[in-house]
Amino acid sequence: MNAKEIPGGICAPLGFTAAGTACGIKPGGLDISILAADERCSAAGTFTTNAFKAAPVRLTEEHLKKDGFLQAVVANSGNANAWTGEQGMEDARAMAVMAAEFIGAHPWDVAVASTGEIGVYLPMQRVSKGISDAASRLNREGGGDAALAIMTTDTRSKELAWDLGGFAMGGMAKGSGMIRPDMATMLAFITTDAEVEPAQLGQALRSAVDASFNLITIDGCTSTNDMVLVLASGASGVSLEGKEIEKHLFRACSHLSRLVVEDGEGATRFIVVRVHQAADGEEARRAALAVAESSLVKTAVFGGDPNWGRVIQALGASLEDADSMGVSVDIAGLRVAENGKPAEVDGKKLNKAMAGKEVELDINLGRGESEVEVWTCDLSYGYVKINTEYHT
Amino acid sequence: MNAKEIPGGICAPLGFTAAGTACGIKPGGLDISILAADERCSAAGTFTTNAFKAAPVRLTEEHLKKDGFLQAVVANSGNANAWTGEQGMEDARAMAVMAAEFIGAHPWDVAVASTGEIGVYLPMQRVSKGISDAASRLNREGGGDAALAIMTTDTRSKELAWDLGGFAMGGMAKGSGMIRPDMATMLAFITTDAEVEPAQLGQALRSAVDASFNLITIDGCTSTNDMVLVLASGASGVSLEGKEIEKHLFRACSHLSRLVVEDGEGATRFIVVRVHQAADGEEARRAALAVAESSLVKTAVFGGDPNWGRVIQALGASLEDADSMGVSVDIAGLRVAENGKPAEVDGKKLNKAMAGKEVELDINLGRGESEVEVWTCDLSYGYVKINTEYHT
Repeated sequence: MNAKEIPGGICAPLGFTAAGTACGIKPGGLDISILAADERCSAAGTFTTNAFKAAPVRLTEEHLKKDGFLQAVVANSGNANAWTGEQGMEDARAMAVMAAEFIGAHPWDVAVASTGEIGVYLPMQRVSKGISDAASRLNREGGGDAALAIMTTDTRSKELAWDLGGFAMGGMAKGSGMIRPDMATMLAFITTDAEVEPAQLGQALRSAVDASFNLITIDGCTSTNDMVLVLASGASGVSLEGKEIEKHLFRACSHLSRLVVEDGEGATRFIVVRVHQAADGEEARRAALAVAESSLVKTAVFGGDPNWGRVIQALGASLEDADSMGVSVDIAGLRVAENGKPAEVDGKKLNKAMAGKEVELDINLGRGESEVEVWTCDLSYGYVKINTEYHT
Repeated sequence: MNAKEIPGGICAPLGFTAAGTACGIKPGGLDISILAADERCSAAGTFTTNAFKAAPVRLTEEHLKKDGFLQAVVANSGNANAWTGEQGMEDARAMAVMAAEFIGAHPWDVAVASTGEIGVYLPMQRVSKGISDAASRLNREGGGDAALAIMTTDTRSKELAWDLGGFAMGGMAKGSGMIRPDMATMLAFITTDAEVEPAQLGQALRSAVDASFNLITIDGCTSTNDMVLVLASGASGVSLEGKEIEKHLFRACSHLSRLVVEDGEGATRFIVVRVHQAADGEEARRAALAVAESSLVKTAVFGGDPNWGRVIQALGASLEDADSMGVSVDIAGLRVAENGKPAEVDGKKLNKAMAGKEVELDINLGRGESEVEVWTCDLSYGYVKINTEYHT
């Protein structure tokens, strides 16, 4: 399964064009993005589990349920169109209708996504101008601008484009804060020119997202606007079964989720938390996320401090019962705690490992077969600064 | 139920002496504390639910289970004696034995508490010297020193002493980080000279703690060492039923938990989160804690930003289902969101309310009768600084 990196982002697969433009929803920077396919595409999505789903999330779910096909995605940054009542639903619907008109598609075949401040109505005059402008610029080189136009506190755009031998896969994502996906994630859009039947594509996407986006966390906060969409144009003529596309989708989702965590708000270090030998998958996931979301663990890593007592604290708080016998913690492959006692460890080596850009925490619960790997980042002054000064 | 403030802290009630001393467990400051009663006292405790309970927690639970009486508490700061295996249990037991010997009590009647770094063996020679020194200084004016000797990242000691008409109540607590009590809390010790039967005292303490310490959070991290103990000497000759002592214990626990949150690591603002009309108590608690533990809500409050969209996000993520109709959010009594839409609000008034030392968030779910009030503090640069530089 060799993937060759190619240019083009979401437009790398055959059959897609894109564009990004600025219409003044947020001060400075591009804020409207359109991804359009030449024909209707087999499509699938996963969506936030937040009870207060934003209007575009509800609309896109509705559109996807119709027959599992989409032809375009229109997205804006700077305004989440969440907690905006009936007006919000009308605005989301209007975005789909406008985009559909410009590209000659049916409104039902347009997905809408928004990200930014919650509880503010969309400035629809600007949005309308933006959609018209973006639609007029759609082209096969537009992937880069589209990826820029979905950014909020992101410091860089997040793209991928792979030649997979006979067919291609492209993707873009945004996300930096309010990241603790649950059955879904921030915004990510993946394209392919392989041909996959919608139901199989949906199943493959859910599996891939569960094993990637759903295992990252930046601040434990599940957004109202999370959405991952995949569109398969079939233009390459290569036809894939669900299991085949799943492995490619998993790699694409992993790649994009790593980019999201690396660009976590204020992040200075990437943290890998692995839980081994848990009683079951649910326990593994709960324990790993508890460690990954601990403010104390995250500030220790920011300080380069191998303070494994905080890992033990987070672990113990997440487990209903646990015998410390059989439990061990390794930092960067160095055993620091086992069987309820500190382990003898070379302090110099440990401090050196903590000074790196990536810190690995391996936790063995010693009571089962399940394991999981979760990605997160440290908690720095930068996180506080960004979220104190930025009005989400 | 008028309480008159009096001096004396935990020694204000008749029958108690205390002392605090420095023995070098932590650099600078007092670090060993003893609270001793003239006679065996009816006693009760609540303890952390962390699966990796520290040795002193396990020992004290064991001692209390015997017959519900205690005569002394020996506590140290700077070292949690947690994740220290059999050696840790032996050390905790040795602390009880030493204290018992000095004050002429049975070791079974001595409670032990520790707070500080996890995963480090206690320096028992120093501890032994400290216990001997503290025991020699026990006196009725020792409450202040005892309260100082249990501090870690606390910036001030936390005490209370009330004349309740015929009998008195005293208390001390420590706690500033790793605070998200669950059926228990950081360290808090309460004394009274009322006479209460142990089983009734236990029931009253559990109710009081559930409605106070268990509803505060600083960083969502449940410690391995949380413990609340109450000792009732009966020396006043006033005898109370469980229901009568419960209301006093609730007030004492509330008072101490407020002091803990006010001194939260890096805290600049006190936040009150109230959830009204929840379907049941569990939902009210889950929703309120989700808002109180949201890094995004806490950084917004630090920045004085009335960013209620983050309250909506945290609320929605905590609820399995919710209809935004009927849901409202008020900041400082000003309605900012209702029925799935932003409310019209006087921005000037709102900004002024956010600039105060205390911010009140009132959330109405509009679908039941349950309500709860949770206390927390903001997330500032100070929290990151303290936890980056301090080796817990």
